[in-house]
Amino acid sequence: MKSPRYTPLVASLPSTVPFVGPETQERAQGAKFAARLGANENVFGPSPKATKAMAEVDIWAYGDPENYDLKQALAVHHDVAPENIVVGEGIDGLLGYLVRMLVEHDTPVVTSKGAYPTFNFHVAGFGGALKTVPFKGDFEDPDALIAKARAVDASLIYIANPDNPMGTWHGAEIMQKMIDNVPNGAVLCLDEAYVEFAPVGTAPALDVSTPNIIRMRTFSKAYGMAGARVGYAIAEASLIDAFNKVRNHFGMNRAAQAGALAALGDQNYLAQTLKNVTAAKARIGDIVRWNGFEPLPSATNFVTIDCKRDGDYARALVSALIARGIFVRMPFVAPQDRCIRVSAGREVDLDLFEAALPQAIKAIS
Amino acid sequence: MKSPRYTPLVASLPSTVPFVGPETQERAQGAKFAARLGANENVFGPSPKATKAMAEVDIWAYGDPENYDLKQALAVHHDVAPENIVVGEGIDGLLGYLVRMLVEHDTPVVTSKGAYPTFNFHVAGFGGALKTVPFKGDFEDPDALIAKARAVDASLIYIANPDNPMGTWHGAEIMQKMIDNVPNGAVLCLDEAYVEFAPVGTAPALDVSTPNIIRMRTFSKAYGMAGARVGYAIAEASLIDAFNKVRNHFGMNRAAQAGALAALGDQNYLAQTLKNVTAAKARIGDIVRWNGFEPLPSATNFVTIDCKRDGDYARALVSALIARGIFVRMPFVAPQDRCIRVSAGREVDLDLFEAALPQAIKAIS
Repeated sequence: MKSPRYTPLVASLPSTVPFVGPETQERAQGAKFAARLGANENVFGPSPKATKAMAEVDIWAYGDPENYDLKQALAVHHDVAPENIVVGEGIDGLLGYLVRMLVEHDTPVVTSKGAYPTFNFHVAGFGGALKTVPFKGDFEDPDALIAKARAVDASLIYIANPDNPMGTWHGAEIMQKMIDNVPNGAVLCLDEAYVEFAPVGTAPALDVSTPNIIRMRTFSKAYGMAGARVGYAIAEASLIDAFNKVRNHFGMNRAAQAGALAALGDQNYLAQTLKNVTAAKARIGDIVRWNGFEPLPSATNFVTIDCKRDGDYARALVSALIARGIFVRMPFVAPQDRCIRVSAGREVDLDLFEAALPQAIKAIS
Repeated sequence: MKSPRYTPLVASLPSTVPFVGPETQERAQGAKFAARLGANENVFGPSPKATKAMAEVDIWAYGDPENYDLKQALAVHHDVAPENIVVGEGIDGLLGYLVRMLVEHDTPVVTSKGAYPTFNFHVAGFGGALKTVPFKGDFEDPDALIAKARAVDASLIYIANPDNPMGTWHGAEIMQKMIDNVPNGAVLCLDEAYVEFAPVGTAPALDVSTPNIIRMRTFSKAYGMAGARVGYAIAEASLIDAFNKVRNHFGMNRAAQAGALAALGDQNYLAQTLKNVTAAKARIGDIVRWNGFEPLPSATNFVTIDCKRDGDYARALVSALIARGIFVRMPFVAPQDRCIRVSAGREVDLDLFEAALPQAIKAIS
């Protein structure tokens, strides 16, 4: 019997995963991680109100395909209209839809070299032509991204602010200038997954008057619900409505919808989380300085740590930490791959990191 | 500023939803439904073990992108290898991936006229050319589907067994013959969302030796977890592996993964659900006979009811029931649209249906 007739594009794609999951590494090692600090998860977890709301949901019922209640609350929260918001299966899911809307065979798409691999996965998955610019120092480079977009006539530009994997950020003025300079016919996807951790004023004002900018937000990070898969995008109404052409309308978990709504309503808990994360980042900074490394300034819930050697050293260090039960990750490309990346953890997590780091350094020296 | 450059395909698509959700109808009516019997949800809900497992999950952590534990358990349950299983965001999500893998501009795809709208949504969404054959009586017509697939050189064929929206089914011999006759180069998608409700022996034996048949299963129906969004597909390993090219690897809700695993492990609870559903279907049959209608035989968790008049009558009846707080749906196309469709409910739900039905009939007479 003949093989299925995959589309030429799909036939050409590799079977791949943007990130190897920590569970995969645990199975390979035959042991659970003692501290899970590699995926920028927020180990402080969600508001107890969110936990309660999730537990009380009738999970036998499909979720509301309109995400009506959550969109209403988000609209109030952000002072935009519900028509300016689409809720989806995490930013990952929304990025997939956005790419599908704008990218086909050889469509030029611009991002930074070493930026979010899942975005690149989606671009490749719809046949786009990824064009990259390097980081400037340890920062994404808005001017270079815009210039590249202009040069290649890109339909889509991606930037994360604050940035992952470096944790660095630009202030609102720089980002507003980038928005203002988006070339005609391009869409700028501004991934603000970590923006709640950033200094007040980092996010430029929301402007939903033109369809050339879309902002991505999530309940995975500051709200502590990565496993629930709730992201949302804010944009001009016609761009938001276009998601209805392609999205999996009944794709949202009903408990996740209710949990996100409750989490959004508990801003006091969010404030406490931000304090916890700030304290954890300070402690991570102390720990790594004691070991001769340098923490980069971070506007996220992780600290990117300059190990002051090359990528091979950082890779060895990550492996040595993983072998000691500490799950961490690191940037993929040079020269950022001189760093490792550690998520803000609880005291118990950071105790383990503090104990393991000197052992790991010694083991690879 | 110029409009975003949507792909020509996306620009041509309508903003649509395959089904209007019951919450949308509730908002329009300004009142909650008293009985939710329209979406073939399993109101008996999940195993308490599944509920407990979902509540105990650390929702701050991303789900395992490999769905390893669930795939292992499903492999044992179905006596296939884990490599023969892909887990996704409900059958809806998996259908989207499958269509994306096989369908591009004008690819012929065969289904029954009036079959699952979400499949059609995905086919349209990837530019496929949908070719339909009519139901034969109230049954999907495997011979006609195969003949049409041969005539149009289809890459993908869809059939649900048991069928939705009619609740009818074919035995394993007929389905095996259909599988055996799949034309070279086509893939048969056999949607078995309701198969746990069907007589033992309805499902043909699982054969994962060729990549031209894929079976879709779900935790949304018999396992009572529609809101969790967990579906899976069983197929030959190369076809399963192709999903890794396009799927949202981190798209699964972590609690849903754990809940599905626990639900699968509680087959006693499933057996009790099947008894509850059988009793509810018998009662629905009695109720509608008392009102002069005829229930069709059903191998699902719903009863499709022949109202013995035309589509206009059935549509009016559905509206009259909805106005009385009873959420039901009906087939979309003639002559099946002479019917309405009622999901198996609890005693309290069916009490309400029993009271409302004669009132609704009287109101439209």
